[in-house]
Amino acid sequence: MNTLLHDPAVSAYAVSCLVLVSLFYWLAYYTGKVRTRVKAVVNPEDVRVYLGASIVEVERPEVQRVKRAHVNLIENAVPFFIVGLLYALSEPRLLLAATLDGVFVIPRVVHAVAYSNGRQPIRSIAWMVGVVVVAVMGGLVTWSLIAGQGI
Amino acid sequence: MNTLLHDPAVSAYAVSCLVLVSLFYWLAYYTGKVRTRVKAVVNPEDVRVYLGASIVEVERPEVQRVKRAHVNLIENAVPFFIVGLLYALSEPRLLLAATLDGVFVIPRVVHAVAYSNGRQPIRSIAWMVGVVVVAVMGGLVTWSLIAGQGI
Amino acid sequence: MNTLLHDPAVSAYAVSCLVLVSLFYWLAYYTGKVRTRVKAVVNPEDVRVYLGASIVEVERPEVQRVKRAHVNLIENAVPFFIVGLLYALSEPRLLLAATLDGVFVIPRVVHAVAYSNGRQPIRSIAWMVGVVVVAVMGGLVTWSLIAGQGI
Repeated sequence: MNTLLHDPAVSAYAVSCLVLVSLFYWLAYYTGKVRTRVKAVVNPEDVRVYLGASIVEVERPEVQRVKRAHVNLIENAVPFFIVGLLYALSEPRLLLAATLDGVFVIPRVVHAVAYSNGRQPIRSIAWMVGVVVVAVMGGLVTWSLIAGQGI
Repeated sequence: MNTLLHDPAVSAYAVSCLVLVSLFYWLAYYTGKVRTRVKAVVNPEDVRVYLGASIVEVERPEVQRVKRAHVNLIENAVPFFIVGLLYALSEPRLLLAATLDGVFVIPRVVHAVAYSNGRQPIRSIAWMVGVVVVAVMGGLVTWSLIAGQGI
Repeated sequence: MNTLLHDPAVSAYAVSCLVLVSLFYWLAYYTGKVRTRVKAVVNPEDVRVYLGASIVEVERPEVQRVKRAHVNLIENAVPFFIVGLLYALSEPRLLLAATLDGVFVIPRVVHAVAYSNGRQPIRSIAWMVGVVVVAVMGGLVTWSLIAGQGI
């Protein structure tokens, strides 16, 4: 078979996406776990699913922290999902493509763990690495659009 | 014509995306509607578009609720947009693909309505169904990457 | 070379995506800049990267404003990323496709600047233009799915 998914660069991109999406769900799960621990919900009806929780007006700081990590993942993964896809479609060299994908994904895992555990400056460094990777991919897409061929 | 969009599995994915995007805008519209009802804005300049509204430091709980529903949609639709696309590109069987798309989209509509109306446990169940669909699609994409063919 | 990226409508979509992703990062950078100015962080560990900042329980209003602009961009760019891609894959006429892409992207830049500077009603107008563009693209994708050809 010879589908778009089986193009080597698209496959490398797909693997990265699957890891990032797992991270989305890990943060969602972790929010629930922290919420269970602090026993506090903002939606009154949620006492039906978080048994024994009390209703609060403002999320507990521990829950807010995981939510910030989740939003930060969205803010950074969405650019990768789009620019990474365009880059994969530019027929890049596989070694470079797979390297860039990996250098984006691994620091995002580090970022999520560092945010959950309150570690700095590693969180900021991991964030910056992701930004640089998307910038490089964006530059390569731009080059491909101008030159008519991928790098 | 024979474009990628007209591949049957991609068409089914496209229909799902159009419904989900409509849901994004419904929640945006609903936020505005609730804001008009509670007459409270956080941006001082917004009194120019929400006539008669007062300026508040913290969003009213009713507005916060719709915003949480909106963020939850983003957190879950983005994984579907990406994994669903990769899955559609794996040349899946149309019946399975269309079923999985529908079983993701319908519970997300239920989730948005249930969140707006404060219903539980249906909201949590609808959320979980969406997570399971994306997990199944992710598994099928992984299988396709390993085996070189879709299911 | 003849990759999907070099299809004219996909190229126009790609340029729009690169501008929008730059806007994501500009808002992230701007959040940091405002945070540096107000010298207030919500994560205690962030005093290691924002030297001299004090730890606050609630984000300063100036920081909240940029974050709202960022979330609004996500809420609106994600629908464009998906519907714009499907539309680009429907083999649309290039002039119409490039026009719609531009009429989405430019108002989103205006929206980000207007939000940062507290301008209304231009912010609401810019938002609405983006919604209309995605609605038109969604209609054209629907037509393409029904008629079997793009417009």
